[in-house]
Parts: sequence; structure tokens; C-alpha cells
Amino acid sequence: MNLLSQTIRQIAPQDPDFRAAARARLEQLTMPHWALGRLMDMAEDLAGMTRSARPPVARKAVVIMAGDHGVAASGVSQYPQEVTVQMVHNFANGGAGCNALARLAGAQVVVVDAGVAGDLSSLVAEGKVVSKRVAPGTANILTGPAMTREQAILSIEAGIEVAISLGESTDLFATGEMGIANTTPSSAIVAALTGRPAEEITGRGTGLDDEALQNKIAVVKESLRVNRPDPDDVLDVLAKVGGFEIGAIAGLILGAAALKKPVLIDGFITTAGALIAQGLAPGAAQYIIASHRSVEPGHDAALERLGKEPLLSLGLRLGEGTGAALAMNLVEASVRVLTEVATFEEASVSHAKP
Amino acid sequence: MNLLSQTIRQIAPQDPDFRAAARARLEQLTMPHWALGRLMDMAEDLAGMTRSARPPVARKAVVIMAGDHGVAASGVSQYPQEVTVQMVHNFANGGAGCNALARLAGAQVVVVDAGVAGDLSSLVAEGKVVSKRVAPGTANILTGPAMTREQAILSIEAGIEVAISLGESTDLFATGEMGIANTTPSSAIVAALTGRPAEEITGRGTGLDDEALQNKIAVVKESLRVNRPDPDDVLDVLAKVGGFEIGAIAGLILGAAALKKPVLIDGFITTAGALIAQGLAPGAAQYIIASHRSVEPGHDAALERLGKEPLLSLGLRLGEGTGAALAMNLVEASVRVLTEVATFEEASVSHAKP
Repeated sequence: MNLLSQTIRQIAPQDPDFRAAARARLEQLTMPHWALGRLMDMAEDLAGMTRSARPPVARKAVVIMAGDHGVAASGVSQYPQEVTVQMVHNFANGGAGCNALARLAGAQVVVVDAGVAGDLSSLVAEGKVVSKRVAPGTANILTGPAMTREQAILSIEAGIEVAISLGESTDLFATGEMGIANTTPSSAIVAALTGRPAEEITGRGTGLDDEALQNKIAVVKESLRVNRPDPDDVLDVLAKVGGFEIGAIAGLILGAAALKKPVLIDGFITTAGALIAQGLAPGAAQYIIASHRSVEPGHDAALERLGKEPLLSLGLRLGEGTGAALAMNLVEASVRVLTEVATFEEASVSHAKP
Repeated sequence: MNLLSQTIRQIAPQDPDFRAAARARLEQLTMPHWALGRLMDMAEDLAGMTRSARPPVARKAVVIMAGDHGVAASGVSQYPQEVTVQMVHNFANGGAGCNALARLAGAQVVVVDAGVAGDLSSLVAEGKVVSKRVAPGTANILTGPAMTREQAILSIEAGIEVAISLGESTDLFATGEMGIANTTPSSAIVAALTGRPAEEITGRGTGLDDEALQNKIAVVKESLRVNRPDPDDVLDVLAKVGGFEIGAIAGLILGAAALKKPVLIDGFITTAGALIAQGLAPGAAQYIIASHRSVEPGHDAALERLGKEPLLSLGLRLGEGTGAALAMNLVEASVRVLTEVATFEEASVSHAKP
């Protein structure tokens, strides 16, 4: 049995007894019933995920999957492809948005080469990048599949391996990504899996103007026409219109779920990865926390399909796991509420009138 | 000149040069233009407030103003009035929601008796509560004014004094409150200042059922009919249908603004206090950050009047400064973005194509 099917089999639902115990305590806290709303919902979820009355979330990792895309040659991004490698160097040097927000969250940043087109060997040698490269970038989805089905499985297994290797030292995972042009395959994935038209799903990414947006929509449509991904087979969708880092994100989520650890998704691209994970193992969604609502127009449809309401809505559209890193504080807050607030009895506070 | 008018005179607009310098740097960061959305807006605001390229926010205080309300006798809350004192003890013992979330934020909790009906002398003697008591609770607004105009000024000056005394050791303020029945005077204030009908503004507070809500709406309406607060005179509104802790919140905001320091408001009650502050000194609003959108129905109208869009929307309805404490992490995040992320030039990353 390969790593992917083995991991899928290990994914179990949240534990109802730990959920019920957490709910019972939350209902007795010195505050009006459920007055901390979504923090309390999340505390109940975390207890169910981790099988603990004190869900551990202290040790945090933001895992950034990097990959390149053949479709970058078709004018779908404002930035040249070499920016993927440049930004990986920026991550390694601690100078990017994700570094600043991960430092604030007390999270380590783990950068993974899932299939970057350029040379990252010096950073791999220094231990600053984990090499899980499937191939140096995908093929252009405008004219054929992004990758083979075997490569799709390899990219997912790369993510699972990262989850396993970090599992011993990580309580809370966050997904991030870097890959010039990767909102294009993400739009194709979300359009394929939700059945929504490309016009509704495709957005400006890093900041396309109107003309470039029309071209990008045409590229997404054509990629779906040429490749005909099967929406009932997410491996087919990933292989035909996906990306290596998107597969690796799906794998990280599956790995975290198998380890019974919470995993925060970030924006549009990581949500596309989450849809691949959900397609492979619907129960994995029980371990996913949606961090924020991106300005990318397809994000809502993707979140709806995933069945998640994000915690934050701050007009973010950066990726890199920045929104997920930012939401780590809210996850920690929900645990603090569960474990640090006194009950009416403990604090000798009068209950509400019956 | 009294403390109130002196404080109002010290409030100056945000500094346009520091705003411009922050914007110039934010536009050069290694990310698509303004890709961290509201974090970047807030960074620009913080630079303008603090007159600094590195806005200080490390030293944090959640200031909880406590007060009691004569209208508690009119069946507007599920909880008996003694819960105000009991919860102040809970704050002093570190067992409440605000304590848990302030600890996570690295903020001290400062509890102020602005006019509680019960005895807090033991906590004051232990240094756990700051005594700024105007009177032991307001009069019932159902039958007459909550307080005299002199008491309204005293309650605001109490808040200003707290801001001044904390100013030397505090970079970032958050407002919180405790006072059984205090959504009722807050509803009356917001209805009076926005001109919106009591039915739209008045909500379930700590969890009233339908019948009790109808009674509360009737109480708010009657308090406005009996007292006829003048919407063009916020001191009159505070005196006639307000509360001592609400005045103290307004004072804390005015004090923070005079000190050129950011102040986070929390939910419905602290926003009512912010409207009083805004009425006295419109420029004070430039130092206010709205932390979250409460489930209390009048909060939207109050925020709109204040001209603020909150950062979070998590179904919170606790008060105590919990939402404001939670948002402190986002304030810190916005400063990290401004000060820790590399520019394109610093990181040798290629710009977007022209």
C-alpha cells in the first residue's frame, strides 16, 4: 500500500467525547452562554481533533510549498517566473511577509521546493529549503496536462512526508505557497470542482489590469476545454490543471489530519489544495481551519465547497501562508478560553436567572 | 481650564508626513501592491498617530471600566446586579475571558471602579482595582436622568486620569467594560445619537428571550421619551441616558488621543463611549481602532456613525474588552509588516512588469 492510501486510511473523524467534554466546560464559563462565539466553536473543534481537554497548539509551523507553472509563459501574471526563486531566497533570509507574521505567531517557517523551475540547491545545502521537487515546474495547462497522474501522487506524497517529518515537533500546521502564476491553475481546479464558470472564479491575482484579466480567464477556460479534468476524480484534476505545490498542500493537509493535528489553510491557492485533499479523504476537512477570506473572487466558492467559514476578512491577497500565520493567534485564543477562563462555580459568580 | 477641555485641546490630527513615509515604504515591500490590505491601512494609521516610522505597540493595557445602572431594576438583564461586583473579583483573580485574552496579547488588565453599586474597597486596598467612583451606580433612566451633568464630566475626567496615569507605561490601549444592564443605556445613547429607532438598536445583551427583549426596547424608548437627550450635546446624552463606565470609556479614548496613542474599542458599549468621545472631539476618532463587530444589532449603526470598520467579526458578545484584546495581535502584525518586511530593492526581487 502506498503512502497516499495509507495516510487516507489513518484519517479518523473528530472525537465526539472530547467535543462534548469541551462543550460542557465552555457552557459553564463565567460569561453569557457561548458569548465568545466562534472562538468557542473552534475550541470544541480543537478538542475533537486533538483528543484533548487542553488542545496543544504551542508548537507551530507555517509550511510554504513552492512550485512553478508552465502557464506562466502565457501572460497570466504580472511577475516574471524567476520571482518564485527570488522569493524563496527572501523567505530563507527572513524578509518576506510570511516571515514577519510567522515570527509574531511564534511559528517556524518551513520552505519546501515541490517543483520550482530554478536552482535552489544552495538553499537546500544550507538546510533552508526542503527538497521534494517533483519536476522543474509543470507543463503549460493551456496546451495539455500540467503533469502525469504519477507526478500528481508524488506531489501529494511529498506533502505527506513533510507533515510526518514535522509531526513530532509541531502541534499546529499552517499551509502557504509560492509560485508565480499559481492562481491560474487554482482557478481551473476550483472551476472544475465547483462547476462554476471561469469568469466567476478567475481574479486579478497579484494585480492584473482588465485586459490581462480577460486573457487569464480565456487561459483558464481553454485549459479546461483542452484537458477535460474529471470533477469526480481529484487526482485527474490535479494532474491536468494543477501544480506541484498545490498537490503538496493537499498532502500536508492529509498528513496533518492523519496525525490528528489542526491545519490552517490560507487563501485561494491553499484552498484549492484543500479541495484536492477533501476529494481524496472527505474526513480531512474536519482538521482544516479556514484562516481568512481572500479578495480573489473564486475563494468564496472554494470555501463553500469545502464547507468552511474563514476567521478573518482583511482584504489580504498575498499568499505565502500570511493569513494562516495571522490566524494562529485566534487558534491559541480559543484554547486559552477553554483552559484559562473560570467557571461560574470556580469563581463564585451568580448564574443567569432561569 | 478643567481637565476635559484641556484634554480636548491637546488632540491633534494624525501626522500626514509620517503617514506618507509609511505608505512609501509599504508600497515597496516584496509583495504585490498593498497585498496585506487592512494590515497596511492600519500600519499607515499607526505611523500617523504615533509620529513614528516604527510605531510602538509593545506595552499594552486593557482598561476595564466598571459601573452599575439603576435601570437594572427594570428587568433589562438576565443577571442580577451583584454580578458586576462578582465579575470584578473574577477579573482581579485573573479568571475571566478578558484575563485569558489579555495574557495571550501580553497586555496588563487594569480594572477601574467608575461607579459600581457594591463594595470593592478590599480590591482597591490590594491595588487590584483603581477607584474612580463617581457614585454607587446611576439612577434609573426609565424615570429620570442617569446622572447630573457634573457627574457626566467627572466620569469622563476619571477616564482621562486613567489614560494619563498609564500613559508613561502604555503604547496601546484597549477599552473594556463591565456593568450589568449596560447595553440598555448604550442602546439609548446610540439611538439618540444616530436617530435610529430603539427597535433597530436594542438587542438581547447577555441573552434575553423574546419577551424580555420587548420589555428592554420599551425601557429604551421610555428613557428617551422621559429624558429627551439633546443629540447635539453628547454631555447631555451621557448624563441623561448614559452610565459612569461609559463616560470613563469616553475619557480613556480622549486621553489616549491626547497622548497620540492608539486605542482599541471593543463591542457595543465601548462604541457608545467612543461616540461620546467623538462628539466632544471629532479628531479623537483618528486614534480609535475598531476591533470587532458585535452580534448586538445596534453595533453596526454605532460603528457607521463613528466611521469605523471593525477588524474582526467572530460572533463575540461578551464585552470586558475581549474583542479589543484579541485584536491587539492584528495591531502588532501591522507594525511587523511595516518594520520587518524587506523592500524589493533590499531583497533583490524583480518588480512587476510595467
